[in-house]
Amino acid sequence: MNLELALRMCEAAIKEAARAGALVSVAVVDAGGHLVAFQRMDGAEIAGPALAPGKAYTAVAHRIATADLAPMVQPGGELYGLAADGRYVCFGGGIPLWDGHGEGERVVGGVGVSGGTVEQDVACAEAAAALWETA
Amino acid sequence: MNLELALRMCEAAIKEAARAGALVSVAVVDAGGHLVAFQRMDGAEIAGPALAPGKAYTAVAHRIATADLAPMVQPGGELYGLAADGRYVCFGGGIPLWDGHGEGERVVGGVGVSGGTVEQDVACAEAAAALWETA
Amino acid sequence: MNLELALRMCEAAIKEAARAGALVSVAVVDAGGHLVAFQRMDGAEIAGPALAPGKAYTAVAHRIATADLAPMVQPGGELYGLAADGRYVCFGGGIPLWDGHGEGERVVGGVGVSGGTVEQDVACAEAAAALWETA
Amino acid sequence: MNLELALRMCEAAIKEAARAGALVSVAVVDAGGHLVAFQRMDGAEIAGPALAPGKAYTAVAHRIATADLAPMVQPGGELYGLAADGRYVCFGGGIPLWDGHGEGERVVGGVGVSGGTVEQDVACAEAAAALWETA
Repeated sequence: MNLELALRMCEAAIKEAARAGALVSVAVVDAGGHLVAFQRMDGAEIAGPALAPGKAYTAVAHRIATADLAPMVQPGGELYGLAADGRYVCFGGGIPLWDGHGEGERVVGGVGVSGGTVEQDVACAEAAAALWETA
Repeated sequence: MNLELALRMCEAAIKEAARAGALVSVAVVDAGGHLVAFQRMDGAEIAGPALAPGKAYTAVAHRIATADLAPMVQPGGELYGLAADGRYVCFGGGIPLWDGHGEGERVVGGVGVSGGTVEQDVACAEAAAALWETA
Repeated sequence: MNLELALRMCEAAIKEAARAGALVSVAVVDAGGHLVAFQRMDGAEIAGPALAPGKAYTAVAHRIATADLAPMVQPGGELYGLAADGRYVCFGGGIPLWDGHGEGERVVGGVGVSGGTVEQDVACAEAAAALWETA
Repeated sequence: MNLELALRMCEAAIKEAARAGALVSVAVVDAGGHLVAFQRMDGAEIAGPALAPGKAYTAVAHRIATADLAPMVQPGGELYGLAADGRYVCFGGGIPLWDGHGEGERVVGGVGVSGGTVEQDVACAEAAAALWETA
């Protein structure tokens, strides 16, 4: 991950949000889960600065899209209890970024989006991740 | 949001609580979720100083009445896990205040009430918000 | 402590702040250190919602004006280390309120002020405490 | 504060860092202390995502450059103990942004820089703030 690419990923997510009429925050983190870039659209809610980096961190920490993690942390799910950890945000909008354009074995970063509906957040994160895939 | 209006909102909520026979705490926060005014009725429980500001903060941070947020954070809900975050209080009694008397696009503050039943807390918060609507 | 008196104490502190040209937050807590009333003047800094209640809590918890506590928590002081506890705010502006108008043995509440210089905060808290003394 | 301006402020700080041979993180927050934009230069330390937003938040919360706050929180200083609060970062690199181009009375945001020497961090924050002054 590098800043130049992270900024372009933020822009891709925001472009998708604008298209959908959503107001979001976007975070891109590195392989250590540490923030590289963050952007909050004008008028986007103040929960974003906590939730967007949290989703990106969670996606990296567990190497899974947070939308896929969501059912696993539910009561009865195999990771029930994980959502109680303040570091994790376990609903859709966070996506891990894999080395080797999706074929590799190593997670080298993550993107997290928050502010729209879960569906919108996921679409925005996917727009950013798509840019990563082709970078 | 300003102190004079926040105080009148506290009074409106407390007046409604007294009418309903409830003992509540009331908090009013600004657009950043920071406390502007707080009042706890004599005899109201000591959880109020944490819960009332928490509900007001949550309503601002997520731009939604906490009563509407409650089902979304339940097991199976799309935001399950959010309630585990110590900053948020995800049950009824918090209401965001919109610029433009309910028609605007910007949340400029929030009110939170705690101490009665959830139904009573919501009614008290609505009494305060109604005053805001007509201010 | 009761709400009616707490509100009058907030007003007394704010009146003194206005006189001094300061913008402050004022908190009044009960014998358990729990918030009864809080007011932030328009334009007062957002640190106030944390610091003013913190000073009031500290004054009650240790039964001492925070201005008197300050030298005790310094390196070499007999309570060195106390200031590292996030619950305490150990500089001037917090005053305990004694039962029996200053002659009693029981702390029944506290007032905390933050936003001006330490000297101004102390003067505002003393104005509130003076009202308590004569209540 | 808005995203477009916040991004330009990040760029100004990074340009100054590059000139000085430093690797920094830059954060811009709004009037509530909530993150609007964050950028970490390639190779900058992972403490930046915590410290840069912390400095910006502190500058807003206390309406003071963190370089000016630093001596006040030292042993013997009038705000000794404040630095123990995890929300605050009390050394140079955070600057509040005033409405009215430096002449106004209202803090509408803040910038924080971390990663270089304190002197470098301050210079980078000042470069960002200078852009704000002329915006």
